[in-house]
Amino acid sequence: MKRRLKLTLEYDGSAFFGWQIQTKTGERTVQGVLQGALAKLPGEHSSLKAAGRTDAGVHALAMAAHFDTTTSIPDNRLLRALNANLPPDVRVLKLEPVSDTFEAQYDCLYRQYLYRMRYYRDDLSGMSLDRFRVLPLFRELDAEAMQAATTWLLGKHDFAAFATQETRATVREIYLCKLEITGRDLSLQIAADGFLRNMVRAVVGTLIKVGEGVFQPEDIKGILESKDRAQAGDNVPPQGLYFVKAGYDPWKI
Amino acid sequence: MKRRLKLTLEYDGSAFFGWQIQTKTGERTVQGVLQGALAKLPGEHSSLKAAGRTDAGVHALAMAAHFDTTTSIPDNRLLRALNANLPPDVRVLKLEPVSDTFEAQYDCLYRQYLYRMRYYRDDLSGMSLDRFRVLPLFRELDAEAMQAATTWLLGKHDFAAFATQETRATVREIYLCKLEITGRDLSLQIAADGFLRNMVRAVVGTLIKVGEGVFQPEDIKGILESKDRAQAGDNVPPQGLYFVKAGYDPWKI
Repeated sequence: MKRRLKLTLEYDGSAFFGWQIQTKTGERTVQGVLQGALAKLPGEHSSLKAAGRTDAGVHALAMAAHFDTTTSIPDNRLLRALNANLPPDVRVLKLEPVSDTFEAQYDCLYRQYLYRMRYYRDDLSGMSLDRFRVLPLFRELDAEAMQAATTWLLGKHDFAAFATQETRATVREIYLCKLEITGRDLSLQIAADGFLRNMVRAVVGTLIKVGEGVFQPEDIKGILESKDRAQAGDNVPPQGLYFVKAGYDPWKI
Repeated sequence: MKRRLKLTLEYDGSAFFGWQIQTKTGERTVQGVLQGALAKLPGEHSSLKAAGRTDAGVHALAMAAHFDTTTSIPDNRLLRALNANLPPDVRVLKLEPVSDTFEAQYDCLYRQYLYRMRYYRDDLSGMSLDRFRVLPLFRELDAEAMQAATTWLLGKHDFAAFATQETRATVREIYLCKLEITGRDLSLQIAADGFLRNMVRAVVGTLIKVGEGVFQPEDIKGILESKDRAQAGDNVPPQGLYFVKAGYDPWKI
């Protein structure tokens, strides 16, 4: 009998060409290794659908995905069997039965990302050990200005100026956009109903320009209104980016 | 003119065949890449001498080493030039002029190591992202018994039972041996005048056996007295091990 399962996944994006399976190029992807691990288990399994498609080098603390399976292996044993067949840079944290109408992508109410940065101007410690985990910063940034800029991003806007690919629907609603500072570490927590391609990385690149004094906080308004990618800051590299959480209606999952 | 410099180094041991240069096999080592980076800079440079020789997979937060050089590049520029020529898994944190009698190995008063472990029994999160940083634990350990066992290790003892290679002098003095617990994370801080080959990893393997109830804390006394490697626990894997610090007379360096 076919049933639908929801997976909660952690992965280190460093050695992956992103989430989405690349059947043509054969690049190593998270979806690819997961489907490869499932294929070794008895039963028929559908392909995986995830709440978000992360790019190469981007990590996940708790990505959500679903698939259908006919396997009769009980869920707790299935989780262990899957992890035994997976490479160590992906782990299934949870495996839960869900309604056969549950859709990891379409039912997702919000996606939350984290972007980590660290100052290495006066202290290089951590620079080798965390090179795949944080963006190194060498110039002092004006964190107050950056925090002020985040308020212009909050709410419902057309984010075309922060999207790498032109898409038809570019309106998104940002629910949370908060800069946290702990010692030498800066991190941006950002949640929205959805994100456009490279949107978090363009937002962080723009906030850094605010922190450097190139933009003023209120310039965000004009950048949004321009709908022109060239007006916003560059995309920051992927290694500081983490998919933190996919939020669902608590009575659905 | 020749002068002596002390380096403080951080490295991610994951992709290194340890500290010591392997001229025969050509394996990638920390000493090897450092000497390769120095060779690209003007002047004559001696080979490097370190406070400790870490094994493959072992990290360093602040390894100390010294070398002699005839280069006229000022120290702060030399540090930047070295880092520019080094792969990203090694960073020179500090570069200081020292007396030409300073010896990173022989003048070292104590070496401090850290061994990190984490419980993944009820929560797998962190298991992929930190796979090269902590030892995964799946069985609950009796931390109180382990802490009690550490007191038997403190002080001056013959540590032959905890050494992989037979050496002549196996007496060492442990100054610090402390188990710290923070949530799911266990870590052992250990400092001594010196460590025998694989000694920290054998100590941790033995403490885990105490935590599992296989050994009683007071069994450490008999294991030490036996001077027999077979009596102690197995060596734990290298990825949880960090060389934390080399201590010197403050008026020497």
